[in-house]
Amino acid sequence: MTRTIISSPTREVMIGFDQPFVIIGERINPTGRKKLAEEMKVGDFSRVEADALAQVQAGAHMLDVNAGIPLADEPAILAKTIQLVQSLVDVPLCIDSSITDALESGLAVYQGKALVNSVTGEDEHMERVLPLVAKYGAAVVAITNDETGISEDPDVRFEVAKKIVNRAADHGIGREDIVVDPLVMPIGALGTAGRQVFHLLRRLREELLVNTTCGASNVSFGLPNRHGINTAFLAMAIANGLTSAITNPLHSEIGSVVKAADVLAGNDENCARWIASNRDSASAETGRRRGRRGVAPT
Amino acid sequence: MTRTIISSPTREVMIGFDQPFVIIGERINPTGRKKLAEEMKVGDFSRVEADALAQVQAGAHMLDVNAGIPLADEPAILAKTIQLVQSLVDVPLCIDSSITDALESGLAVYQGKALVNSVTGEDEHMERVLPLVAKYGAAVVAITNDETGISEDPDVRFEVAKKIVNRAADHGIGREDIVVDPLVMPIGALGTAGRQVFHLLRRLREELLVNTTCGASNVSFGLPNRHGINTAFLAMAIANGLTSAITNPLHSEIGSVVKAADVLAGNDENCARWIASNRDSASAETGRRRGRRGVAPT
Repeated sequence: MTRTIISSPTREVMIGFDQPFVIIGERINPTGRKKLAEEMKVGDFSRVEADALAQVQAGAHMLDVNAGIPLADEPAILAKTIQLVQSLVDVPLCIDSSITDALESGLAVYQGKALVNSVTGEDEHMERVLPLVAKYGAAVVAITNDETGISEDPDVRFEVAKKIVNRAADHGIGREDIVVDPLVMPIGALGTAGRQVFHLLRRLREELLVNTTCGASNVSFGLPNRHGINTAFLAMAIANGLTSAITNPLHSEIGSVVKAADVLAGNDENCARWIASNRDSASAETGRRRGRRGVAPT
Repeated sequence: MTRTIISSPTREVMIGFDQPFVIIGERINPTGRKKLAEEMKVGDFSRVEADALAQVQAGAHMLDVNAGIPLADEPAILAKTIQLVQSLVDVPLCIDSSITDALESGLAVYQGKALVNSVTGEDEHMERVLPLVAKYGAAVVAITNDETGISEDPDVRFEVAKKIVNRAADHGIGREDIVVDPLVMPIGALGTAGRQVFHLLRRLREELLVNTTCGASNVSFGLPNRHGINTAFLAMAIANGLTSAITNPLHSEIGSVVKAADVLAGNDENCARWIASNRDSASAETGRRRGRRGVAPT
């Protein structure tokens, strides 16, 4: 059983096949949030504070922190954001940047064992990011693209993941500290996007024995009723081995489907968390079973 | 690709790995429905009529018809119910009884190619039901228990399914006309129930190459917020190969998760059915993509 441990000074989160699914809150990210970007740039972190508290309140087990603002001092802003968030909430963080200096600046101030988001399979990128991950004793999200881009063939993406795991080993980073992102494409644009990811998730779990994460909301991009697609996607991805996701915990359907999937995957002993979180539900039923199949009325 | 074809005089339903998921409406079943049982016994079929119309209206692709009423003339009532339902709706039917005479009486009046529900792996039961299935050119639901009961080991249940498929072949019934029910246990009583079924569904699809169905609601028996468990279960079961389910289409969440799963499994070309069924949804989004990952805001 591969278990990835991420921590804050007071809390440890374990990602693993036999563990409850881990929700990483995606909200602290100025990409596509113009107002948030402007505020963070001028040192107004009130929205970051509110997002941090709201996501943890809504059930996020970890928070992703990104400070990717064009023409801003990303390393400084990211470090400041991380310190602020760590002063407010005790969940472990995912330090998210495509700029190596920003990752290092974030790692330098982070208290605990962070999840670095991310490293790709590009040689040059691996050689910049993996030494940092090793230096700070962090874990890292491995993105399954390389110099050739993102392959539509999930088996090619599997090979990229394998390459990153092997390269990480050269840096003394074990596979338990690699969380692979299989890359979720919008299914409205690519009809095989779901099948691709499910196939890849299964191989990552069964052959490469690694934990996984993904930006789950991307699958429904451009479609109506995105929550309907997103929740079904999460359940199906978990059924194929996904062990964490970077997503929006403020959508209550997300928390609900993840808790149900924990029950069904056998990772909620005696359904205790399900029962606790649905204590007020009126739909508990104790009626007779039906027929020879034991089908209960619903 | 294994495709199971079931038909009425005017409509054909195809169950298959590359086909939209098939919902078999479960409501026309007096087991556990005292009022319906009393009415059917005295020849009042008004509730059957309403249930038939409502389920098809709600999106059922087929209807299960059961007339299992204690101390009643089940063969006569089942035949009458089938004739009535076929006069009202054009979806194919699943003829459901544990009494062989009732199955035969139902098959004798059924117009089209029916799905017989069901045969178990018990020798004596196979020798009674399979000749009937062959005689009427029907398909049949194969339940994975035998003389020894229902094993908690999914690999034992797999062997039972295999035995039924082999025996059916002796009667000239191909595997495309066997729809295996892996048997879903209540997860509140058996924490491994989900894992068992998912494992078995995968083997049934990959090794035995058969279509599958199940009484999906049973998994949540005794738990609060049953719909939450049931919808996640359906998505996860479909992700593992389930191709149809006997369930309640009147719960709108069922239809929605099944349609989303069709999209994600690549069985809804260009997402056409999803878009059509969510035409009025306000949540269609065409906003920018986010960041290097292409994660869209939700």
